[in-house]
Amino acid sequence: MTTAEKSVAVLGLGSMGTALAAALLAAGHQVTVWNRTPGKDEGLVGRGARRAGSVAEAVTAGEVVIVCILDYADIGPLLEGQGVGRAALQGRVVVNVTNGSPEEARAMAERVTALGAAYLDGGIMAVPEIIARPEAFVLYSGSREAFEAHRELLDTFARSVYLGEDPGLAPLNDLALLSGMYGMFGGFVHAAALVRSAGGPVAEFTTALLLPWLRAMAGGLPAMAAQIDSGDYAVTGSPLAMQVSHDSIGEVSRAQGVSAELFAPLFALMRRRVADGHGSEGFAGVVELVHPR
Amino acid sequence: MTTAEKSVAVLGLGSMGTALAAALLAAGHQVTVWNRTPGKDEGLVGRGARRAGSVAEAVTAGEVVIVCILDYADIGPLLEGQGVGRAALQGRVVVNVTNGSPEEARAMAERVTALGAAYLDGGIMAVPEIIARPEAFVLYSGSREAFEAHRELLDTFARSVYLGEDPGLAPLNDLALLSGMYGMFGGFVHAAALVRSAGGPVAEFTTALLLPWLRAMAGGLPAMAAQIDSGDYAVTGSPLAMQVSHDSIGEVSRAQGVSAELFAPLFALMRRRVADGHGSEGFAGVVELVHPR
Repeated sequence: MTTAEKSVAVLGLGSMGTALAAALLAAGHQVTVWNRTPGKDEGLVGRGARRAGSVAEAVTAGEVVIVCILDYADIGPLLEGQGVGRAALQGRVVVNVTNGSPEEARAMAERVTALGAAYLDGGIMAVPEIIARPEAFVLYSGSREAFEAHRELLDTFARSVYLGEDPGLAPLNDLALLSGMYGMFGGFVHAAALVRSAGGPVAEFTTALLLPWLRAMAGGLPAMAAQIDSGDYAVTGSPLAMQVSHDSIGEVSRAQGVSAELFAPLFALMRRRVADGHGSEGFAGVVELVHPR
Repeated sequence: MTTAEKSVAVLGLGSMGTALAAALLAAGHQVTVWNRTPGKDEGLVGRGARRAGSVAEAVTAGEVVIVCILDYADIGPLLEGQGVGRAALQGRVVVNVTNGSPEEARAMAERVTALGAAYLDGGIMAVPEIIARPEAFVLYSGSREAFEAHRELLDTFARSVYLGEDPGLAPLNDLALLSGMYGMFGGFVHAAALVRSAGGPVAEFTTALLLPWLRAMAGGLPAMAAQIDSGDYAVTGSPLAMQVSHDSIGEVSRAQGVSAELFAPLFALMRRRVADGHGSEGFAGVVELVHPR
C-alpha cells in the first residue's frame, strides 16, 4: 500500500507522541514536531523530522495536527495560544489522542471546530512499543469526512477503527476496553495468588492453563453480548443460582491466606440478581445491576 | 489412537456425569452407570451402558470408578455404604471429579486410599457440552501411578493435565482458573454496561474490539507471571502510579450512570501499592497485597 505523502504536525513528544511521529516518518510523511520542554526531538530530527520553535510554527506546517500531551487541560490554551487559533487552524484536521473523557472530547471538538478545523478524537489501544505493529489499534470518533480523508495516514499508527460522529465515542470505548483489561488482570492476580499460595510456579500455570482457559471462556462472550443487547438472559451454561450456590473461591482463598476482596462486588451482584428472581438465567444479566436500563 | 477397552463405573448421572459416560461409551469402554434417582440412564443404556442396581454393583463392575455427584458430603457414605467399602474398592482407582476444595480432596484421598483404592481428584475445565472436544481439559492430582495407568482412558474426556501427587492441586488450580474467568467476565460486564450506556450494540463492540484487545493484553500475562515468580516488579508497561493517577473508569462510569463498584477493590489495591512505595513498578506487584509472601 502506498500512501500519499502528507505534512503532519505532532504536538507532544512523550513516549507515545514520539512513537507516532516515528511511524509517520517511517511511512514517508513530512513531520514537524513540537514539545513544551526541549531535547525530546533529537532522535526524530535525526530521522528527518523538522523541529518547530513554537506551536504556531508546527501547526502551520501540518495539514494534520496530532495532539498527544499529558494534561488534557493544556490542549485548549495550546491551540488558542500565540499565533495559533483560527488563523493557523482554519481548514486543518486536529487529531487529539490525549486521554480524556467523552465529555472532554465533545467539548474539545466544539472548541476546535469553532476555530475552523475538523476534529477527530483518538483512543490508542496500544503501548508505544507496539505502534505500527499489527496488534495495535486506534479508535476514532468525530468528523467522518476527516477520518476518511486521512485514513491511510492514520493507518500508519495501527489498525484504525472509526466509531461515529459523536467525538465522545472513542474515549468511551477506550475506557470500556480498559475495563475489560482490568477485569482480566484482576482475575489473573487472584489466580496467581492462589497458585502461589500452594507453592506453584505462576509462569507455568499462566502459559499451560490460564491462557488456553481464558481463550476458551472468551469464546462465550459474543453470546453473552447478544443476550445483553436483546435483554433475554435465558441460560446457556450454568444458571446463576448454581454459580453462587457455594462461595468456593472465597472459602478456598481464605483457607490459603489469599484475600477474596477482588471478587466481593461481583459475587454480591450475582447473589443480588438471584435474589431478584433471575437465578435460573445466565450470568450476563448481571449487567442490569451495573447499568439499569 | 487406539485405547485398550476398560471397565469403568460412573456414579452420578447429572449432565456432567452423563457426558463423561457417553464419551467413554463412544471410545469403546465397558461402562456401568449408577444414579441415586432412577430414569437418568436411559439414553446411556441405549448406547450400550450397563445399569447398576446399587453402588456396590457399579463399583465391582469397574476397574476405574468415576465419581461425579452434586454434593461432596455424599461421597464418603456412598463409597463406604452397603456392599462397597474395602471389599469392593480394593485395587480399584477412584477418580473423583465432584467439585470440592483442596482440603476436601485431601481428606477424600485419605479416606479412599484407606479403603485400598488409588485416588485421583479431577477438576473438569469444561461444560458438559464440550466434553470430548479439543478445547476441554481436565486437571488431575493424586496418585501419579493411577494417572499414568489410565491416562488414555482419561484422555477420552478431554486433554488431561496432571498436576502432582497432592490431591488438593486439581481443585486449587480449578478455582484459580475460575477466578481468572470471573475476572474476565466482570470486566466484560462493566465494559458492556459502558457501551450500552452510550447506546452502542454490545455484540459488535465485543467481537470487533473487546476480543482482539483481550487477546493482545493476555499476551502480557506470561511476563507478569514471571515477575510474580521472581518478586521483581520492574516496570515493563505503564508504571502503577501512572495507571492510578486519574480514576477515568470511575468518573466516566458514574457520568454514564454505570456503577463503578466492580473495580473498587482492584483500584484500591493499586493505590495502596503506590502508597507503599511501588508506584514506579508494574501492575503485577498487586499480587503482594492479595497474597503476602
